Amino acid sequence: MCLDPAVTDPDLYKVIFENDRVRILEYRDRPGDRTSPHEHPDSVMVTLTSFRRRISAGGRQAEVDLPAGQARWLDAQRHSGENTGGTDTHSIFIELKEPRPAGLPAPADALGPSGG
Amino acid sequence: MCLDPAVTDPDLYKVIFENDRVRILEYRDRPGDRTSPHEHPDSVMVTLTSFRRRISAGGRQAEVDLPAGQARWLDAQRHSGENTGGTDTHSIFIELKEPRPAGLPAPADALGPSGG
Repeated sequence: MCLDPAVTDPDLYKVIFENDRVRILEYRDRPGDRTSPHEHPDSVMVTLTSFRRRISAGGRQAEVDLPAGQARWLDAQRHSGENTGGTDTHSIFIELKEPRPAGLPAPADALGPSGG
Repeated sequence: MCLDPAVTDPDLYKVIFENDRVRILEYRDRPGDRTSPHEHPDSVMVTLTSFRRRISAGGRQAEVDLPAGQARWLDAQRHSGENTGGTDTHSIFIELKEPRPAGLPAPADALGPSGG
């Protein structure tokens, strides 16, 4: 099963750049849109619009409410999302293609963005 | 000599997030503003406003003219910049903190963003 969001939700996630070190995705949706379960590697998300969404994984949920122009770290994780706000979403994901350095284990329970 | 842009131009470059894998800078300037010579590691720049600027290094120059909402790869490089447009600049730099993987040498002559 492929959990690449560019494959699970090709109408919402578009690959706009890729080289040896990063892959860059553009995400756009409308109120009420939902994504299929998918996986992100360690990534940075930059918001180009404000949005409100619900992130779900394994029976857990996180509410995310962000203004435009923010940058947020996203630990590697599997989840699905839903635009629960009243506005379209437009954001950029910078995926890190290299594995985590040895001795830096990924959090097992990351859900949604964690800092920025 | 420290060529960290957060040190050379602290009024323009602000560190807004840092962890083991990335450091995130926010850049803001006004028309006519210039940066001191500084170094970027391999980075991704996301534009939050449109801007026009001139990037200079070692007697070479590159003109950069970008709309808002763009993501561009920036190979590691040393340069200075000048806002040559008529609008304020607001952009985000995601710096990759890990060294380039073995066998992936950095271009010696990178000047300005190269793709996205």
